[in-house]
Amino acid sequence: MDCIFCDIVSGKEKAEIIYQDENVISFLDIRPINYGHALVIPKTHYENFHAVSPEDLNSVISVTQKVADAVNKGLSTDGINIIANNGVASGQTIFHFHFHIIPRFKTDAFNYRPVLKSYGSGQMKEFADKIRIAVKK
Amino acid sequence: MDCIFCDIVSGKEKAEIIYQDENVISFLDIRPINYGHALVIPKTHYENFHAVSPEDLNSVISVTQKVADAVNKGLSTDGINIIANNGVASGQTIFHFHFHIIPRFKTDAFNYRPVLKSYGSGQMKEFADKIRIAVKK
Repeated sequence: MDCIFCDIVSGKEKAEIIYQDENVISFLDIRPINYGHALVIPKTHYENFHAVSPEDLNSVISVTQKVADAVNKGLSTDGINIIANNGVASGQTIFHFHFHIIPRFKTDAFNYRPVLKSYGSGQMKEFADKIRIAVKK
Repeated sequence: MDCIFCDIVSGKEKAEIIYQDENVISFLDIRPINYGHALVIPKTHYENFHAVSPEDLNSVISVTQKVADAVNKGLSTDGINIIANNGVASGQTIFHFHFHIIPRFKTDAFNYRPVLKSYGSGQMKEFADKIRIAVKK
């Protein structure tokens, strides 16, 4: 299976690696939203967020916090977005699970604030019910 | 301290609660990007992602995966965005840490794909160095 992120893990593909440990690796996105935009991935290949094992999920979120702190301090940001896209419709382009850490600045051009919807009467409960039924207790 | 999310945790404020356990609660965002847009928060108040304790971070990401699976199945989505905004400049509006779980559909109107930057020669290493120096080993 061809996977550019697996190639970074194996060393076959070069990357600006920020941090790595036994289970997780973090490196810069080559096409950043803002400079210093970093990615954090489990070394094990999982297609998306839903597939990640509990152990790797804990390792990834812990390293994401560590690297987000470092991006924050190292680049003196005004904020950080943590984003994981899952599925083509969400904007996922590399099908090896990853968190984006996006450094933000008061004056930057990344304004993704969308138009927010409102719920009609009773509609919010309808949607909540559909999700509640699907939650594995 | 006034915090709308702490009021949801305490039951003072109503919400469409999807799931809760001892440490974490998930409920619908009242102003959704798409219907069924859910939030996951630690019951303990932390201003943002950087401040969350390791234990609560593990609990929150585990519940986020569980609820994302339920949103996915319950609403038959084409994808999911997982987003945490930290700092005003990032779009954070409620200063109690939360993950957004945003159901996505092939035909939806939420297109936040930004203009991506490129790095000049040597520039990527410069940014990586600043972050690497700041990573707590």
